[in-house]
Amino acid sequence: MGIVVQKFGGTSVGSLERIENAAKRVLDTLKRGNRAIVVSSAMAGDTDGLIELAKRISEFPNEREMDMLLATGEQKAISLFAMTLRKLGCPAVSLCGWQVPIVTDDVHTKARIMKIGTQRLRNLLEEGYVPVVAGFQGVTDDWEITTLGRGGSDTTAVALAAAMGADCEIYTDVTGVFTADPRVVPNARKLEKISYEEMLELASLGAKVMQIRSVEFAAKYKVRIHVRSSFEEEEGTWIVPEDEIMEKVAVRGITVDTKESRITVVRVPDQPGIAAKLFKALGEAHIVVDMIVQNISHEGYTDMSFTVSKNDAQKAEEIVNKVAREIGAKEVVRDDRVAKVSIVGLGMRSSYGTAAKMFEVLSNNGINIMAISTSEIKISCLIDEKYAELAVRALHEAFIEDGEEIKVENES
Amino acid sequence: MGIVVQKFGGTSVGSLERIENAAKRVLDTLKRGNRAIVVSSAMAGDTDGLIELAKRISEFPNEREMDMLLATGEQKAISLFAMTLRKLGCPAVSLCGWQVPIVTDDVHTKARIMKIGTQRLRNLLEEGYVPVVAGFQGVTDDWEITTLGRGGSDTTAVALAAAMGADCEIYTDVTGVFTADPRVVPNARKLEKISYEEMLELASLGAKVMQIRSVEFAAKYKVRIHVRSSFEEEEGTWIVPEDEIMEKVAVRGITVDTKESRITVVRVPDQPGIAAKLFKALGEAHIVVDMIVQNISHEGYTDMSFTVSKNDAQKAEEIVNKVAREIGAKEVVRDDRVAKVSIVGLGMRSSYGTAAKMFEVLSNNGINIMAISTSEIKISCLIDEKYAELAVRALHEAFIEDGEEIKVENES
Repeated sequence: MGIVVQKFGGTSVGSLERIENAAKRVLDTLKRGNRAIVVSSAMAGDTDGLIELAKRISEFPNEREMDMLLATGEQKAISLFAMTLRKLGCPAVSLCGWQVPIVTDDVHTKARIMKIGTQRLRNLLEEGYVPVVAGFQGVTDDWEITTLGRGGSDTTAVALAAAMGADCEIYTDVTGVFTADPRVVPNARKLEKISYEEMLELASLGAKVMQIRSVEFAAKYKVRIHVRSSFEEEEGTWIVPEDEIMEKVAVRGITVDTKESRITVVRVPDQPGIAAKLFKALGEAHIVVDMIVQNISHEGYTDMSFTVSKNDAQKAEEIVNKVAREIGAKEVVRDDRVAKVSIVGLGMRSSYGTAAKMFEVLSNNGINIMAISTSEIKISCLIDEKYAELAVRALHEAFIEDGEEIKVENES
Repeated sequence: MGIVVQKFGGTSVGSLERIENAAKRVLDTLKRGNRAIVVSSAMAGDTDGLIELAKRISEFPNEREMDMLLATGEQKAISLFAMTLRKLGCPAVSLCGWQVPIVTDDVHTKARIMKIGTQRLRNLLEEGYVPVVAGFQGVTDDWEITTLGRGGSDTTAVALAAAMGADCEIYTDVTGVFTADPRVVPNARKLEKISYEEMLELASLGAKVMQIRSVEFAAKYKVRIHVRSSFEEEEGTWIVPEDEIMEKVAVRGITVDTKESRITVVRVPDQPGIAAKLFKALGEAHIVVDMIVQNISHEGYTDMSFTVSKNDAQKAEEIVNKVAREIGAKEVVRDDRVAKVSIVGLGMRSSYGTAAKMFEVLSNNGINIMAISTSEIKISCLIDEKYAELAVRALHEAFIEDGEEIKVENES
C-alpha cells in the first residue's frame, strides 16, 4: 500500500463545488488501496484579495505580517477541504504548516523548508485519517509563520512526498506537460514522461506548469511527480529521474519567452575589465542578466549585448548608460521587441547536428538570430518578437513531428 | 507606567479605515505613557461569511475543522492591524492564540482558557513592540486550534489583562453601559461605574454590551474594565470591584428581555416528585429553564409555569405535553408574547421596599405580573410583551430619574 501526496492548486479548490470534485479524486485514490495526504493552495482569488488589502495599507507591508495574513488563505481552504471529505464519509484532519510541522528558515515571504516532522502525519495515516496540509506555509524554530513564495504549494507537496517516501500528484488546470504551448502549436502533444532536468529547463524558459524550486526539490530527493488535470480523468505527465526514461529524444519540448529585453553597448573598447565593470554595476542593482553575447573585436573595439527581464530593462539601460560613458563606448541601444525561442532535450547531449538544424529551420523561415546561448540539454536563440510564434511552430514541426531525423546514441 | 489591554470588536475593525482609527486609539494610549496590548476580533462580517461557507458544506460541520476555519478571521484582522500600526510608525507584532500561547481545554467551538503564557508578551513589550493578539482563539496542549464561542474576544482581553496585571479597555459601538436601553428610554444615562455583579445581572438579562463569561472572568481576577466607544473620545463605563463604588444605589439599571416564552401546565396533581419529573425531562433535552412559578394548591391540584428561550419553546412544549399526560395534568398552554422586565442594583441588598415599589409602578400603569423571580441584587417580573417598553420607561422614571426615594443603608 503506497502513500500518495495529492496537491490541488487554487483553481482546483476555487469554489465549494470544486473542492468537492477534488475531494472525490482523493476518495478514488483511497479506493485504489492507497493512503492519501492532501496539500491545498488557497482558493483562487483569496491570496490576491489579501495582498490587495495589505497594499492598501502600505506599498511595502511588513513581510512578517504579510506571512501572517497570507497564511489564512490556505488555512481556510484546508478546513473546508477536510469538512468536505468528512461529509463524503472520509475521516480527515486539516493541518497548518506549524502543526505538521513544516520547519523553514526565517526569510519571510520566500522561506525555504529546512525539515519536516512526519510523526503526526504517520499517526494520522495509521488511524485512517486523510491529513489535509496547508501548502505554501511553514513555521520557524521561533514559532513564526512563514510562506514559501508564489507557487510554494508545489514545493510543500514535493517536500512532503520526499519526507514520507510517497509519490506526488500535482492537480492543476492543464492536463500535463506539452511539447509546446498548445495555444501556439495545435500539433503539440502531451508528454507521457519528462526528466527533472528537462522540466527544469522548460520551467526556466517560460513553461508555467510547475514552480522551478519544487522541481529542483523533486530532483534532489527523486520524488516522482504526476502532473494532471483536476477536471479530467486522463493520465497526465510524469516527471521522473532520467534513468526511468527509455526514449531519450534529442528535443523534448520547445518554449518561447517574450519577457526579456536586449541591451547592446555599441563600440566598447576591447580591454580586460570592461565586461566585469558593466555586469558588476548591474549585479549591485540586483538585476539578473540572462544571455550575454560579445562579438569579436575590430580595430580594438567590440559590441556587447545581453538580455534582462523587461521589468528591469529601463533600470538596466540607465545603469549601462552611465557605465558606457565611463568606459568610452559609443552608444547604448535597447530593444524590447525580442523573443527567446528554445529547444530542450536530454538526448541533445549525445546527438549530432541539433544546433545546426535549429539554425537552418530558423533561416529557412527568414528569421535572423540575434544571439545564441546553450546548456548541455538546451539551445536558445534570440529573435525578433514578431517571428516568435512562427519559430515555435517551425521548430516543433522539424524536431517533434518529424523528429526521427536526429540521431540519438544509446547511452547505456 | 501601566499596561492597558485594548480590545476592538468586529465593527471597530470592520474596514481598513476603521482599523486605522482603532490604531490611533492605541497610539493615544502610548502617548499617555502606557504600554499597550491589542486584542482584535475578526472584521465585521468575516466570521459570518466563514460560517455560511461551512454550513453550505454540512448542516453540522465538524467542530474541530470549524475552529480551524473561524480562527482565520482574527488572524487576518491582527496582521492588518499590525501593518497599520507599523505604517503609523509604531512597531507592532501580531500573535495568533497558539503563539502567545493562550492554552485552552479541548472543547471545540466553546473552549475555556486554562492558562496564558506571558513571557513572549513581556519580551515584546520590553523591546518596545505593541503585541496584537487574536481574540476568540486558543490552542490545546496537543496543538489543536480552539475557539472560545461567540463574544470570546472579550474573554481573551480580560484573561490577558488578568495574566499581565493590566487594565482592560473594551472598544465597541456604544459609548458605555446605560441605565436602560437608550433606544427605549430617551432619559437613560450612561453609568460612570458599575460592579461586576450588577454587570453580570444586566448581561444575563439581555444587555448586550459584554459577554457574560468575560465579566465572570473579570470578577474572579479583579480586572478593571473600561467599556467605551471606538468612534467617540468620551469616557465610557468602568466595570470594577464592588468596593470601588461609593454610591450604592438600589437600582443601577433596568433591562427587558423578550426572548423567552412561558409554558404553563394546568391542573397538576400537587404531589412530591411531579416538578422533578417535569424539569428532569427538560434538562435531559438540554433546555435551560429560567423563571419557575408554582401557585398554592386548590383541592390537591396546582398550576405550574416556567419560561424557556423562544428557540427552545416548541421542543419544550412537546416534552411537557408528554409528561403532562403521564402525570394527569389537564393541559399545557404556551405563550410566546411575554417579556421579562428586571431591575438590578447592589443597593437592593440593604434597601427596603424596592420590590413593593416595582410592583406598584407596574400596577399603576395597568400592567399585570405573570411571574416574579428575584436574586440578591435583582427583581424580574414577567409581563405581557405589549407592555415591555412602557414598563421599562415607567420603572426608569421611578427608580433612576426619581431614585432618591429608596433608602440605601451604608454597608461600611
